[in-house]
Amino acid sequence: MPPKERVKIVEVGPRDGLQNLSVHVDTRGKISLIKQLAACGIREMQIGSFVSPKAIPQFKDIREVIAGILDLKGITLTAMVPNLQGLRDALKSGIRNLVFFFSVSRLHNLHNVKQTPEESIESLKIIKRELSFNPDTDISVALATVFGCPFELQVKVEDILRYVEAVAAIGVGRVTLCDTVGFGNPKLVEQITRACMEKFPEIHFGVHFHNTRGLGLANTLKAYETGIRSFESSIGGLGGCPFAPGASGNVATEDMVFMFNEMAVETGISVQKLLDVTLYLQDILPDVSLNI
Amino acid sequence: MPPKERVKIVEVGPRDGLQNLSVHVDTRGKISLIKQLAACGIREMQIGSFVSPKAIPQFKDIREVIAGILDLKGITLTAMVPNLQGLRDALKSGIRNLVFFFSVSRLHNLHNVKQTPEESIESLKIIKRELSFNPDTDISVALATVFGCPFELQVKVEDILRYVEAVAAIGVGRVTLCDTVGFGNPKLVEQITRACMEKFPEIHFGVHFHNTRGLGLANTLKAYETGIRSFESSIGGLGGCPFAPGASGNVATEDMVFMFNEMAVETGISVQKLLDVTLYLQDILPDVSLNI
Repeated sequence: MPPKERVKIVEVGPRDGLQNLSVHVDTRGKISLIKQLAACGIREMQIGSFVSPKAIPQFKDIREVIAGILDLKGITLTAMVPNLQGLRDALKSGIRNLVFFFSVSRLHNLHNVKQTPEESIESLKIIKRELSFNPDTDISVALATVFGCPFELQVKVEDILRYVEAVAAIGVGRVTLCDTVGFGNPKLVEQITRACMEKFPEIHFGVHFHNTRGLGLANTLKAYETGIRSFESSIGGLGGCPFAPGASGNVATEDMVFMFNEMAVETGISVQKLLDVTLYLQDILPDVSLNI
Repeated sequence: MPPKERVKIVEVGPRDGLQNLSVHVDTRGKISLIKQLAACGIREMQIGSFVSPKAIPQFKDIREVIAGILDLKGITLTAMVPNLQGLRDALKSGIRNLVFFFSVSRLHNLHNVKQTPEESIESLKIIKRELSFNPDTDISVALATVFGCPFELQVKVEDILRYVEAVAAIGVGRVTLCDTVGFGNPKLVEQITRACMEKFPEIHFGVHFHNTRGLGLANTLKAYETGIRSFESSIGGLGGCPFAPGASGNVATEDMVFMFNEMAVETGISVQKLLDVTLYLQDILPDVSLNI
């Protein structure tokens, strides 16, 4: 029998799932959520963003949350950083694994981080240099609106490849291709992931899909078949982008893990334990409608 | 450019979507729903079942509904018939295209139609003979619980093939492989659809998936890639099986059409018009939560 295929599921619920909610989850609730998710077998998790609390109030207590989870073992905890200040704050909090993000769509990037994509690449250079003075740190890049933009609609593959090239030239080895709004379809997913993997075989690509039109798992399946082995998802299907009108929930982690487990693709994650966590979500988010 | 791929989307909302609801949709509402769906470009639709009104009260007015839609042009209207009596009633009402159904799982079939699968095959023989005296009629078979059964769990591929063989021997040329509860996963879908198509190349196979665990469109995609070109779905994701505990909604027609249209696979159906029909669903089913 050939060795079992494996995928990595990156839980983004504590970051992408919570950031768009009007309800504030208190620090204890966030810490408990993250610890419960880790106990399901999740081995990488985005726990928040070092952004202005004015922009996204949900993360105003991110330092306290991190203080409460740094003792977790066997899991890579990541935080999003939009700029040098965010990076410094993140490192000070004890987080060693960062995610920098920008949109391949100029208009979406201007809305989201008030920079052109080219300016974001300059920011990434500065961040990468700063990181080189900090041992045992790592950074990946989340490329937003890769499969479509709410403002510019379709995105050109050559633009995506050009930005990946710029990111690779800075020395970043991991890029997540994000369907920020949920515009992707399996054909487009195959086209873009294949183009990226063929042109940059040295880069480790992941994907991040939203379920706006129900296509999240179909896109996941197609990305898997094309060779992607890293997938972001959010417990309970929570999520959305505050600066992407119409974006709805991420692919639900429990659905994604169920699909892979049923296909005999190893995730190392327990669906039953994830379902228990969705019940906990109902406790801390009583007024939020969940995908369960 | 190669000719565009085409798929047939079979709308089952008026049958599978409504049959499980506690709320009764009145005759005018059903007729209007069916006519609106036809106007979206749908070319085949299951409009109800000729079963006892005690078992499924929703279809007690099926004759009146049919009388109101027989003038629809360019669309194949089908009704489910469980037995000879149902067939005779269906033919009397003016319907010419029938669907006979049974489960490849013995326990589910006993629950659903109080027969073993072998007894169902005997019923099908009787029905097929009766149909031979009625020109311009046709019948297909819906095989239930093909991708898993709530009572017997996994189903053996050789059992599925054996029942398809029996159906083919009776002279039925169309078989729909139904994931009655939503147990299917893309790997299983590929395995079973491929086995069926390879063994019975003369049979026209369709699929019918439920979205219980969010895998409906992923399974649809895999079936399409394996060569299936006929897909059942339900407007608004309505649906379920009254005799399959835990079954939830069908794949939503608007999601399925959106996916194929976006992949440049021709459906002939307008997503925008389907979305308008989901708004109408909210009028006639005000207390039912829809997948929209």
